[in-house]
Amino acid sequence: MADETREKLVQGTLRDLTPLLSPRSIAVVGATPDPYRVGGRPLSFLKRFEFPGPIYPINPKYEEVQGIKCYSSVLDIPQQVDMAVVAVPAARVLDVLRECQSAGIPSLTVYTSGFSEMGAEGRKLEKELKTVALEKGTLICGPNCQGVANLNDRMVANFSSTLLRDNISAGSIGFVGQSGLFTGIVAAECHRRGLGLGYLNSTGNESVVDFCDMIAHMSADPRIKVVAGYMEGIRDGAKLKTALRVARKHNTPVVLLKVGRNEQSAKAAASHTGSLAGSYEIYQAAFRQWGVVEANDISELFDLIELFSSSPCLSKGERVGILTNSGGVGVFCADQLGSLGLRLASLEDTTKAGIASKLPAFGSAENPVDFTLQALTDARAIGSHLSYMIRDENVDAVFLFLGVQMLNLRELVREVVGANKINEKPIVVSWMLGDASVPPEFWKAGIPCFEDPLRGLKALKALKFVSGTLEYGKPLKVVQSAVQMLDDLAGKGHCQLGEQQSREILKLLGIPVARGEVVESSASARAVAEKIGLPVVMKVESNDIGHKTDVDGVRLDVKTLAEVELEYDAMVSTVKQRVPEALIEGIGVYEMLPKAVELIAGIKRDPVFGPVVLLGTGGVMVEIFKDAVVRVAPISDEDAWGMISELKSLPLLKGERGYDRADLAAVAALLVSISDFAQTAGSLNELDINPLMVYREGQGVCAADALLSLKN
Amino acid sequence: MADETREKLVQGTLRDLTPLLSPRSIAVVGATPDPYRVGGRPLSFLKRFEFPGPIYPINPKYEEVQGIKCYSSVLDIPQQVDMAVVAVPAARVLDVLRECQSAGIPSLTVYTSGFSEMGAEGRKLEKELKTVALEKGTLICGPNCQGVANLNDRMVANFSSTLLRDNISAGSIGFVGQSGLFTGIVAAECHRRGLGLGYLNSTGNESVVDFCDMIAHMSADPRIKVVAGYMEGIRDGAKLKTALRVARKHNTPVVLLKVGRNEQSAKAAASHTGSLAGSYEIYQAAFRQWGVVEANDISELFDLIELFSSSPCLSKGERVGILTNSGGVGVFCADQLGSLGLRLASLEDTTKAGIASKLPAFGSAENPVDFTLQALTDARAIGSHLSYMIRDENVDAVFLFLGVQMLNLRELVREVVGANKINEKPIVVSWMLGDASVPPEFWKAGIPCFEDPLRGLKALKALKFVSGTLEYGKPLKVVQSAVQMLDDLAGKGHCQLGEQQSREILKLLGIPVARGEVVESSASARAVAEKIGLPVVMKVESNDIGHKTDVDGVRLDVKTLAEVELEYDAMVSTVKQRVPEALIEGIGVYEMLPKAVELIAGIKRDPVFGPVVLLGTGGVMVEIFKDAVVRVAPISDEDAWGMISELKSLPLLKGERGYDRADLAAVAALLVSISDFAQTAGSLNELDINPLMVYREGQGVCAADALLSLKN
Repeated sequence: MADETREKLVQGTLRDLTPLLSPRSIAVVGATPDPYRVGGRPLSFLKRFEFPGPIYPINPKYEEVQGIKCYSSVLDIPQQVDMAVVAVPAARVLDVLRECQSAGIPSLTVYTSGFSEMGAEGRKLEKELKTVALEKGTLICGPNCQGVANLNDRMVANFSSTLLRDNISAGSIGFVGQSGLFTGIVAAECHRRGLGLGYLNSTGNESVVDFCDMIAHMSADPRIKVVAGYMEGIRDGAKLKTALRVARKHNTPVVLLKVGRNEQSAKAAASHTGSLAGSYEIYQAAFRQWGVVEANDISELFDLIELFSSSPCLSKGERVGILTNSGGVGVFCADQLGSLGLRLASLEDTTKAGIASKLPAFGSAENPVDFTLQALTDARAIGSHLSYMIRDENVDAVFLFLGVQMLNLRELVREVVGANKINEKPIVVSWMLGDASVPPEFWKAGIPCFEDPLRGLKALKALKFVSGTLEYGKPLKVVQSAVQMLDDLAGKGHCQLGEQQSREILKLLGIPVARGEVVESSASARAVAEKIGLPVVMKVESNDIGHKTDVDGVRLDVKTLAEVELEYDAMVSTVKQRVPEALIEGIGVYEMLPKAVELIAGIKRDPVFGPVVLLGTGGVMVEIFKDAVVRVAPISDEDAWGMISELKSLPLLKGERGYDRADLAAVAALLVSISDFAQTAGSLNELDINPLMVYREGQGVCAADALLSLKN
Repeated sequence: MADETREKLVQGTLRDLTPLLSPRSIAVVGATPDPYRVGGRPLSFLKRFEFPGPIYPINPKYEEVQGIKCYSSVLDIPQQVDMAVVAVPAARVLDVLRECQSAGIPSLTVYTSGFSEMGAEGRKLEKELKTVALEKGTLICGPNCQGVANLNDRMVANFSSTLLRDNISAGSIGFVGQSGLFTGIVAAECHRRGLGLGYLNSTGNESVVDFCDMIAHMSADPRIKVVAGYMEGIRDGAKLKTALRVARKHNTPVVLLKVGRNEQSAKAAASHTGSLAGSYEIYQAAFRQWGVVEANDISELFDLIELFSSSPCLSKGERVGILTNSGGVGVFCADQLGSLGLRLASLEDTTKAGIASKLPAFGSAENPVDFTLQALTDARAIGSHLSYMIRDENVDAVFLFLGVQMLNLRELVREVVGANKINEKPIVVSWMLGDASVPPEFWKAGIPCFEDPLRGLKALKALKFVSGTLEYGKPLKVVQSAVQMLDDLAGKGHCQLGEQQSREILKLLGIPVARGEVVESSASARAVAEKIGLPVVMKVESNDIGHKTDVDGVRLDVKTLAEVELEYDAMVSTVKQRVPEALIEGIGVYEMLPKAVELIAGIKRDPVFGPVVLLGTGGVMVEIFKDAVVRVAPISDEDAWGMISELKSLPLLKGERGYDRADLAAVAALLVSISDFAQTAGSLNELDINPLMVYREGQGVCAADALLSLKN
């Protein structure tokens, strides 16, 4: 566990990848003459891409490899080397690492397979590799990776065959993949689309350098306009957040395709690179909270890369104006908006009148606007429609569809480009099956252009999403008394708090709980019931019992004091009989709370992202509908309101269907409060308030039942 | 209304489109010399595509048009003409129709706009056109359409500019669109993909010939392998069903893209061609019931057209075996299966062992199988993996992904084609960014091949969907007594039945209802309560009151006979006070049903599809979650079970989370029974059972409350 402890110390800390990704000199350990084999590729690629620094092939078998002087060992190299590419058998890698360390080489890219992806033996070898690397702070990319490339610096140490293609150009896209072949696919697609690649990095088993390090490093490079990644899983959510903060600071959008979204496929992903599985829902929440643009499939990833590499204008809202030369496609687009989080703009009357004034009689000036065949003969009218729409206060972005357009091309481009300069709202074009010379002109003018209209709409969604994300960071409220109490209990070895203790903590956090207390005799039970008023709820108090109802340890609606006394004795004896091994600390006597909307609120702990805030609709029936929302802690007020607004039961909470409007502000405050607590109380494991009674606006909330567990 | 009545008479009846789509001779009314203008295109296209029959330009201004002798009127043509293309101003169309009728021309294709898409005046004109056409049984395609083309017969009377492109080839795809430009887009895409078009029809305003006529005609043509359509809306669901039955009879798959899916966009669609809006959910249900393959977006439509035009092998189930050269893409594919209604096959041990025996050490023989770089050097191993997988009893279809593959191409094709011959299970290939010469070879061998893996998986879904659809038709059970009772009440002018009458009908249908009856005095109320047993439910009986609870007309759980008497008088006087205008027929006294899972079942009437069966989960909270399923009546037993299985609350009904397993067979039987009733009782409008109490398996169901309304 030694290396894991060490790892924890650097949790959330990014590594400086300069020696790895901008080396001034490179050694290739295991260099071979055949440029088509893995051992021969690095040399051949470095030469082909004209790496400007010295290259040192290392192979005791050769005097010279591919025309370059060859050394027997890295220890023989006369100058400083920044990075070593390692392509030797697995059994040799550890020795090579030690030699590199002796030679003062700060970074390695290890192609070699046969580590943690290959069973227990391999895992042991990789652990050793990692331990040795961390001792000296050596960066290792891999093992079991396709390598790294920084094309702007002409450093290509990635052996993907795609890089054999002609005219691979350097550019503004930074890519990192947790799958080697996927990296090659991205390179091939960028090549086909004529997009320049800045980085092409594959992280393999991530023994030292990981996905997050790569994201941060690439996004801080001023030559990079978009960072994209193919992600199977990460080990440290906090580190991802730190990396994304770097990206945000540099205004670099980050586009990720996350795979392993269900249990079965996550298992496949984990076996592929040995990453932690984690829950996809929490990844999704983290992406939204931290401003990642998530791609849902491979083509969408490509489109988003292309989109953001053009530094597009962002959209401030979700209201879309649609202009088409096909009424049918206009309707299709209107269909799609909702599921993309966009909506059809309601055009101002002046806009409609303006458009109508330039429209043929059979066109429609309602959004979606159908200008029929007008683009064939009157490009100026299209320009006029566009400018009316883009000036409309109710429109955040404009979508222009032109299908099978073969005439009037230069005039149309001129008009659209002209309209695009009117203000800061994005215009996205779908140019479908028309003359192929047009799309590059739109891109050149900063107007995103996709063939399929759905792809164009998805681009619009991304433009809105990015501008809509929140800033990071907010001050945490520390309730020292609650943290202290929890730490004390943890110190005493507690794992699971009883209801009494759990309620204490909530009270310290300022969360209302049902009145009452735990008593140890029927007489005290009667006294408490008398004090708080009838009817009452009675529950057995025991740290050894998880589900009290299962052992007859809960009685609702006890109506008389006599019943309270009787019930005390009855419950103690029943529970003793049912679970003789349980230590019964007493019976809790609590007020019977008035009816209300019931929610569930709590904290779960995710292996990757740490404490996670959960909100759901309560009740058995609703459990079936999986009406729950998560966010990674800590959350802001806006996050809390966002969670509430995502509940499917929102209409009820807002007071529809005969319900009262619920006290949503109190729910939001509670969520922030437990989130801050989770973030500041290191000994908290999980917290579960079920049900949380939510009363009408202004009347607050009340925890009917609460359970806390500790990290131990 | 005369023409609407007439239309009703032919509801569900298809028209014989032979004169329109396979004319032996064509007149072009309004023919002009410029081949690039609308009036000039038909002649030029007919010549260009070498229409084999005589062509008669009609235009009093010319002696000859585009080198063909021109006539002043269709009445002057010496021979029989099967179809007239009409491209004259709207004001002239009616006269042209009459002249064509006089000349014995049985069909017209009317390009002219200015009809129902242009306001009240246009609607009037179109109505007249339709009336005149129907009088003589003249077929009209349009008005306001881009025309029709039957390329196998070299008959091109569609003026889409796409048909100007070089090398438009005839073939096995029949397309019909309710949007002119969309038709051009499909033609352009087929052209780009090298797919031959059989038909290219645009229906415009559908004054006479409609979308359904086109579907049926094209699907019965033996040269057509797939019929596809772009649909905004139809007017007659029964006719669509008849058309689809024709398609099924000829084994022609029908692929449709339906737009106008939400209220706003449906309005846009309706204004575009004047179609009825209808509810998209019901279109979706009809498509599933009647075996339509629904495309969700434009690219998917193209892919499905390409897929089915290749007469692919269908899949018998949803269990997919995945083979890839990228573990990452394998995981991505596994992610996507669920939402496509597919799932990852659990490979048999012999399959895994067989694959493992030919796999490099670092590959994985678990599904999804990652054979890493093996395809670069050992095509035979890939063939071996494929054949193990396709022979596996747990595998219904195999998906092969090969990314950036540039080597070993012919060998790979040979292996895959060989494996494809092993049995009747489909292999679908995703060939991404590899050598472009390969995909056509797969297609040629009957192996669907798409670039993006998601597109390939969607193709697999379609192959499974088509084979999974049910046969049409089943005998309806007619409950004559219930039908008669309803007809009698309808004859007396009733619109809304009271609960008493509604319960009568349900009883006649064999559906259990809560015991009890409507009484007219407190003494009778007491007597009924005594008979059925306490406690009881009391409800005001009045045809004038919709929501009884709103007027204090419902009392649950009345516990004593004395209370029953008191409540009778109290309810009568309260309701009289609240709604003085309502005629109170008495008070219903019913047994208080034991608790159970509550569903909602009923019949709604859709303007397009007629009676529709509905099943939903009951209760206020669940209304929010929109847990309801619809089917077009009549439904089969399998449909009924399908509805139940689609409820989100299914786990509860199946007895999870502490619930008893509910009597689902009774629910299914009830659904079929109300569906048959709706189909046979012409006077039924709607039927609403809410709640339907569903008891534990074997204990049946009971309608706690029922309401019927009549068509009047």
